[in-house]
Amino acid sequence: MTPYFYTICYGDTDAGGVVYFATYLRLCERAWTAYLDAQGWNLAAKAKEGVVLTVKRVEADYLSPARYGTTVAITTRIEEASRASFWFHHEIRESASGTLFARIRAQMVAVRPTGKILRLPDALREIIERRQDIPSTVGDA
Amino acid sequence: MTPYFYTICYGDTDAGGVVYFATYLRLCERAWTAYLDAQGWNLAAKAKEGVVLTVKRVEADYLSPARYGTTVAITTRIEEASRASFWFHHEIRESASGTLFARIRAQMVAVRPTGKILRLPDALREIIERRQDIPSTVGDA
Amino acid sequence: MTPYFYTICYGDTDAGGVVYFATYLRLCERAWTAYLDAQGWNLAAKAKEGVVLTVKRVEADYLSPARYGTTVAITTRIEEASRASFWFHHEIRESASGTLFARIRAQMVAVRPTGKILRLPDALREIIERRQDIPSTVGDA
Amino acid sequence: MTPYFYTICYGDTDAGGVVYFATYLRLCERAWTAYLDAQGWNLAAKAKEGVVLTVKRVEADYLSPARYGTTVAITTRIEEASRASFWFHHEIRESASGTLFARIRAQMVAVRPTGKILRLPDALREIIERRQDIPSTVGDA
Repeated sequence: MTPYFYTICYGDTDAGGVVYFATYLRLCERAWTAYLDAQGWNLAAKAKEGVVLTVKRVEADYLSPARYGTTVAITTRIEEASRASFWFHHEIRESASGTLFARIRAQMVAVRPTGKILRLPDALREIIERRQDIPSTVGDA
Repeated sequence: MTPYFYTICYGDTDAGGVVYFATYLRLCERAWTAYLDAQGWNLAAKAKEGVVLTVKRVEADYLSPARYGTTVAITTRIEEASRASFWFHHEIRESASGTLFARIRAQMVAVRPTGKILRLPDALREIIERRQDIPSTVGDA
Repeated sequence: MTPYFYTICYGDTDAGGVVYFATYLRLCERAWTAYLDAQGWNLAAKAKEGVVLTVKRVEADYLSPARYGTTVAITTRIEEASRASFWFHHEIRESASGTLFARIRAQMVAVRPTGKILRLPDALREIIERRQDIPSTVGDA
Repeated sequence: MTPYFYTICYGDTDAGGVVYFATYLRLCERAWTAYLDAQGWNLAAKAKEGVVLTVKRVEADYLSPARYGTTVAITTRIEEASRASFWFHHEIRESASGTLFARIRAQMVAVRPTGKILRLPDALREIIERRQDIPSTVGDA
């Protein structure tokens, strides 16, 4: 899998001159959405069918600040899947240099639009099992 | 009416060191929501009853940049009401000095959750007629 | 010029089920940044050299709501340039159908990081004169 | 300490009908800023003096979704302080019912505007030692 590329705009930054700490979570949502879509799981289409992925826990480590105008490469890996949840592991790096800005992990569960937690659907479990522990190409570039 | 007070946090600013231009719109949403609530029109309650106010047009003038840590006072006035729409006029000023940061006008229409445009409900029209052209206390302070 | 493509994620939407009205401004920042970069004016590089483009006025018309998962195409045109300012004209459409979601105009001025307004730099004026009134390819598609 | 109260607006939510997962981090920034300000440490003033608090790690547990229009009460506690870092522990609850929406912990370090990490300033350490492990009034309400 290629990483998700994104160029930091003013709207992603704060007066400290760097990417705002909450912005990284929004960027990860973009990365995991593109990742699952490429694997055949379109989140918007599945939401219409009544299966929504929602975030149960986030762990974020901020290692180096990303600045305005920087193009970041976000890698996505799936790990630690169980019957009811799995984790996205993301690394957000400077695309040009590979400098690591942040490591973000998000535990996901599947719910009905009402909020009721579901067993992970089979089609999603197949993607997870196929992808689990496979690092994306630029993860360590 | 007292203005809506809000202290600018990092999440409201950008790497230019000042409030991001789109953030002012979010702050106006907070101001008009508080304003209507004080007049007896709670937007969240009305949305549950099937009447949603939605933005049709925005005009924003940026006059002076607001910085991190500044407490702003946002005044709200209602103007130019018709059967189907009305305008919020906001001024966003430094609370301490009165310096004008931005003037933002938003034209609102009432819709069903499906998006169908409604005639403005009578209870809302009464608020609008009562408040129209009445400057809030600190509007020109 | 090709338009700027962007797929709407949860972080761009609100509980009304559609793109939040302030989000469109952030998306326009992304579009004009890519547009100027393609013309040879990289905003981040110029900011380091002490020339910052800042928004003086925004006019936004919201015509139809864009939903989660939709890919939008944002066109950018430059108009009404003067010695000190110019306007970006954006149309945000559904990429697949051409449905027009919003028309957003932003008046820009060049400033020093201190906020002092500048005459538009010559290199930027050349881009503006070259591009002015030239509709981008999909603007009316 | 009283908690930080905040009413959820459309700009805080997403098309799932609930508060967007990254929004909670922005709300915590508001809460810890108000908390430290009440203790005599104004983050904006200190930033001008060259001491900036920055986030090193975040752990967020999402327990129940908060909806549009809900007033949340955010409690703040300081824990696990060392010479170079400390943790904010936040609970975000429905103000009316006490329902727990999220638990968010943020590890903070002090840096120069250049990014150089500092030993925590003495005045801040005094606040931390005074406040450490003291639950805020509604933390367990």
